[in-house]
Amino acid sequence: MLDIGIIGASGYTGGELMRLLFNHPQARVELATSRKLIGQKVSATHRHLKDMVDLEFENPDSQEIKDRCDVVFVAVPHGTAMEIVPKLLDDKVKVIDLSADYRLNPDVFEKVYGIKHQDPRHVVYGMPELHPEVKHEKFIANPGCFPTGATLAAAPLAQVSMIENVVFDSKTGVSGAGIEPSQASHYPNMAENVQPYKLTTHRHLAEFTQELQRLDNSLTRISFTPHIIPSVRGILTTAHIFTKGKLTQYDVMDLYAEMYQDKPFVRVVDGIPSLSAVRGSNFCDIGFEVDTRNNRVVVISAIDNLVKGASGQAIQNMNIMCGLGETTGLWMSGVAP
Amino acid sequence: MLDIGIIGASGYTGGELMRLLFNHPQARVELATSRKLIGQKVSATHRHLKDMVDLEFENPDSQEIKDRCDVVFVAVPHGTAMEIVPKLLDDKVKVIDLSADYRLNPDVFEKVYGIKHQDPRHVVYGMPELHPEVKHEKFIANPGCFPTGATLAAAPLAQVSMIENVVFDSKTGVSGAGIEPSQASHYPNMAENVQPYKLTTHRHLAEFTQELQRLDNSLTRISFTPHIIPSVRGILTTAHIFTKGKLTQYDVMDLYAEMYQDKPFVRVVDGIPSLSAVRGSNFCDIGFEVDTRNNRVVVISAIDNLVKGASGQAIQNMNIMCGLGETTGLWMSGVAP
Amino acid sequence: MLDIGIIGASGYTGGELMRLLFNHPQARVELATSRKLIGQKVSATHRHLKDMVDLEFENPDSQEIKDRCDVVFVAVPHGTAMEIVPKLLDDKVKVIDLSADYRLNPDVFEKVYGIKHQDPRHVVYGMPELHPEVKHEKFIANPGCFPTGATLAAAPLAQVSMIENVVFDSKTGVSGAGIEPSQASHYPNMAENVQPYKLTTHRHLAEFTQELQRLDNSLTRISFTPHIIPSVRGILTTAHIFTKGKLTQYDVMDLYAEMYQDKPFVRVVDGIPSLSAVRGSNFCDIGFEVDTRNNRVVVISAIDNLVKGASGQAIQNMNIMCGLGETTGLWMSGVAP
Amino acid sequence: MLDIGIIGASGYTGGELMRLLFNHPQARVELATSRKLIGQKVSATHRHLKDMVDLEFENPDSQEIKDRCDVVFVAVPHGTAMEIVPKLLDDKVKVIDLSADYRLNPDVFEKVYGIKHQDPRHVVYGMPELHPEVKHEKFIANPGCFPTGATLAAAPLAQVSMIENVVFDSKTGVSGAGIEPSQASHYPNMAENVQPYKLTTHRHLAEFTQELQRLDNSLTRISFTPHIIPSVRGILTTAHIFTKGKLTQYDVMDLYAEMYQDKPFVRVVDGIPSLSAVRGSNFCDIGFEVDTRNNRVVVISAIDNLVKGASGQAIQNMNIMCGLGETTGLWMSGVAP
Repeated sequence: MLDIGIIGASGYTGGELMRLLFNHPQARVELATSRKLIGQKVSATHRHLKDMVDLEFENPDSQEIKDRCDVVFVAVPHGTAMEIVPKLLDDKVKVIDLSADYRLNPDVFEKVYGIKHQDPRHVVYGMPELHPEVKHEKFIANPGCFPTGATLAAAPLAQVSMIENVVFDSKTGVSGAGIEPSQASHYPNMAENVQPYKLTTHRHLAEFTQELQRLDNSLTRISFTPHIIPSVRGILTTAHIFTKGKLTQYDVMDLYAEMYQDKPFVRVVDGIPSLSAVRGSNFCDIGFEVDTRNNRVVVISAIDNLVKGASGQAIQNMNIMCGLGETTGLWMSGVAP
Repeated sequence: MLDIGIIGASGYTGGELMRLLFNHPQARVELATSRKLIGQKVSATHRHLKDMVDLEFENPDSQEIKDRCDVVFVAVPHGTAMEIVPKLLDDKVKVIDLSADYRLNPDVFEKVYGIKHQDPRHVVYGMPELHPEVKHEKFIANPGCFPTGATLAAAPLAQVSMIENVVFDSKTGVSGAGIEPSQASHYPNMAENVQPYKLTTHRHLAEFTQELQRLDNSLTRISFTPHIIPSVRGILTTAHIFTKGKLTQYDVMDLYAEMYQDKPFVRVVDGIPSLSAVRGSNFCDIGFEVDTRNNRVVVISAIDNLVKGASGQAIQNMNIMCGLGETTGLWMSGVAP
Repeated sequence: MLDIGIIGASGYTGGELMRLLFNHPQARVELATSRKLIGQKVSATHRHLKDMVDLEFENPDSQEIKDRCDVVFVAVPHGTAMEIVPKLLDDKVKVIDLSADYRLNPDVFEKVYGIKHQDPRHVVYGMPELHPEVKHEKFIANPGCFPTGATLAAAPLAQVSMIENVVFDSKTGVSGAGIEPSQASHYPNMAENVQPYKLTTHRHLAEFTQELQRLDNSLTRISFTPHIIPSVRGILTTAHIFTKGKLTQYDVMDLYAEMYQDKPFVRVVDGIPSLSAVRGSNFCDIGFEVDTRNNRVVVISAIDNLVKGASGQAIQNMNIMCGLGETTGLWMSGVAP
Repeated sequence: MLDIGIIGASGYTGGELMRLLFNHPQARVELATSRKLIGQKVSATHRHLKDMVDLEFENPDSQEIKDRCDVVFVAVPHGTAMEIVPKLLDDKVKVIDLSADYRLNPDVFEKVYGIKHQDPRHVVYGMPELHPEVKHEKFIANPGCFPTGATLAAAPLAQVSMIENVVFDSKTGVSGAGIEPSQASHYPNMAENVQPYKLTTHRHLAEFTQELQRLDNSLTRISFTPHIIPSVRGILTTAHIFTKGKLTQYDVMDLYAEMYQDKPFVRVVDGIPSLSAVRGSNFCDIGFEVDTRNNRVVVISAIDNLVKGASGQAIQNMNIMCGLGETTGLWMSGVAP
């Protein structure tokens, strides 16, 4: 039984780690930290966990964390993780960082986030479908929510260098804005609405670019525009992929089927994915249609932003890093309707 | 490992039985029937179950059902169950009927539903918190969705004969209207709306009455008004209970704590329940406040109508009838946010 | 053409006053105040008013307000209005206060709100259907949102002293929580949810009580429980009215038809009201059903909380106070679907 | 006062025509037809119109329609309009067809819709911002909902032949699916979801193409993918426009400001449009941001699909065709929040 620590457990990704780990047969949450809520019951913040998680928020020092935990998930804001992680790295502990701090090459990070990196190092990008080397690591950087769905949608075509130009148009649920109320999450602002934002400048674009260029270093035309939609969970990404030549529906199916054939959490579906089928689960559903008129392939990916886009993928990484079955504790369907 | 049959598996309660049973360690779905969808993949209808339920809908005769299954859930419309159930009853099979056909005394049933009962018999009402005798049964009637939340909200006060008059004002999600599109479930009709219906005549009232009168046969003043709200899942019931004398918050807490102390799926909460904390789970959350001015206790109960209000409670009954732990396969939290 | 001032124009009721007055043929908004947003364009806050309201927020002293305006709407928080209103009262200006400060007898106000009243005086309660004397007033107190729908739902039965006991179970949209983000208005908390609050202690109860007791001073059993539902606008109130004797559907229809026969904004409907039919309009739709078993009448009222529940009713009062037609500028249907 | 006939008045566009015309100072609805609902009250279907529209559905022959009406709106399904319109055309009557039948060149229509055109003729496309010649017509074809927002978003850049390639990614509310319940409009399917559909084959693409090629006949790379989102009303279109050369934010602002400077219903906004600001109104809000890295301009347009995308634009056309002010009866803001 692995003892788990969650650093920054009062937010949505912390709550989701606890929800999912509660049903993991080989892990148990030992420690949930919060600087603001020390001594308060976890279930007072995450009310759905009442009678299941009987912990109080704590804030121990890093030595105690390492002593008590086999695996530590770091779920703090970007800029803060780089202060905490170095103290946790240790031969006996595995660390999974859910912030943006270690996902990018440090030079790129500093440009994109406008922050000097205090702990520059090379870290494996924890998307197991593209990075099987996760299994040898003690510390990995868990991908961002938009990059997960977008990269998986385009990877099979990038790998064969077929992409001329790709536009990712993403639709995210409001939980992506976090647990703290804001104008962006104010119910009267978001209900019955769609709110595009950062039309050309969202920082997650740097992650897509890094990952897709690993697969095809000639690919430079990558665009991204996110939108908030009236849903709590989920990211649906529409990848408009202009290809270098004509492709048939069968060509594309072959590429996707081959790349994801032994990836349990990517489901290449016959129809068109939607958020409903993945809500609450670790699946990424992918479907597509070829527009021969324009040499365009429209690929749709759907994930739950809090599961495959954050906490579920983090546990998938933990499973792999710890030698457990990749799907352990995560092999459950979405909640539909 | 129990082999499970689901009669009428194409609707929401059928889908939910499969979602929940997929994670049950001692059961597996052997058979999913549908008269209309014979030969089609279950996951074409219930898309969230793709790669998890690899069955096709079938429609075998009752002998084959009994040969292949240890437990049969009947999830067909009322009036139809009474035609199917008698053929399934057998010493070797356990049957749980999710329709209304066997919940009421046959005389009452005929009055309320306006149908002649073709198989009148006494059947235990499968609400395990009030009917521990479920454990000796081979056939039980699973409660309705509104009666589950309403009865649990009022039972502790009914048991001590303190209720003078009770008004149940319930708010249900749209999934209660079923998988078939209708005016009541048309998105433009329900979004940003509340739709009261059957203000004084909903048939579920007969179930509340039966169950509460079992606890207090002098209780006659029971009213019920349901409303559809813009949520997919969930029923929140506000029970306005006028009591025969003054009660303090402590008095009420004692009654509820005592009645539900060893009932794992009823959580008496400190604050005010809401649908968010129970969505996807088998919990019934209960909270209350005393209005001393009017000798009124306002009790709020919240359930997921498809889980504790239908399929989850049915599996809870199965567990008890089969000698398994009551919470087996159901001990998971709600999905929040 | 009346020159209108709106004190506290940055919130939802201020925005709604401007939306409605823009189409009023005999009024024009001259002044919109905000202490925080001085010099900013009104349409930067209320983006739907772009190209229609070309004002900037100001904060002039009371003398200037009186000099520039014929009618002043005060839309500031309770406790603040009583500081502003006395300086505005003047023979030449009409004042309509949308806060709670002047709705109640000052003694009752102090008990309910826990604030010493700085300007105790008798003010007419501006519900024109019950208070035709509005037409003689220069200053009126505009009713609260819950009291508007609830009082209109019960008044015809109160007037004939038929009410033994009434429970108001109200469902309100999230805009009732105001324009500032909070936990109560956080999208992930409210979507797919129902949140009861102040189960027995909501302050609006004092308004219902005052108004219903004016009609029947023997009526004491009045209860109220509010719930927030996932809708931006609207309040639907379910009034469970236990009557002193048996009433038929016809008896009730006669009472309601008679009381509201020449009240243009109350529509007694044949079916069951819902929020959809009144959204954006000044109507209060009322429908009912008699439960003869329990001597209960279930009356449903539906209003738009920002229109009939606030700004629309305020303009209706203005029309009457200024000798205009009651429906001037307000005679438009709801926006459905 | 113009007498108005609405052919096919039982659907959403019919209801919206009546809602809007009710406040039009120079028009009144004389006739509302429905083949299925003859003799029923219009307000029984469109409940928000109670006490405002006191008509019953009729089904008179075309001569009577022409005798009784000055303007006829045809709001029937495509394929049906071409049977009705020829009989209505007459010197004394103006006809506005809201179906797809007359929007396209008949040859293109037959290919796209797979129907033989029974009344091929050249008809002006009723988008007044691009077709001022509407004012000389007696019969016009009212644009589709997606084409309205998409064409207005791209026209200024098409007009100067700057578009290399454009991808329209549109998000529509559920009311676009019509008043009849279906899987696409089933609340449990659409709440908390996004549903892309017809990824590469939506028929409205032919309208965009026709209109944009009128402005730039060298433009061939036009793509379109629609999505249904959980909102009743509204279409937000994200136009990813790859330009032939570099453009600055100022260049683009100049083009849009110039093209729309005297178009009252197109608002070029400073920030990013969203559905909230246009709901219920005839505005098309447009905003944009330049992505210099990729020579991409992201243009966002937001409309209410039932107003500017259908009935409002039809009335705007009526105003122009009848010599009234373009904004008559339509100069009202959206309903927000």
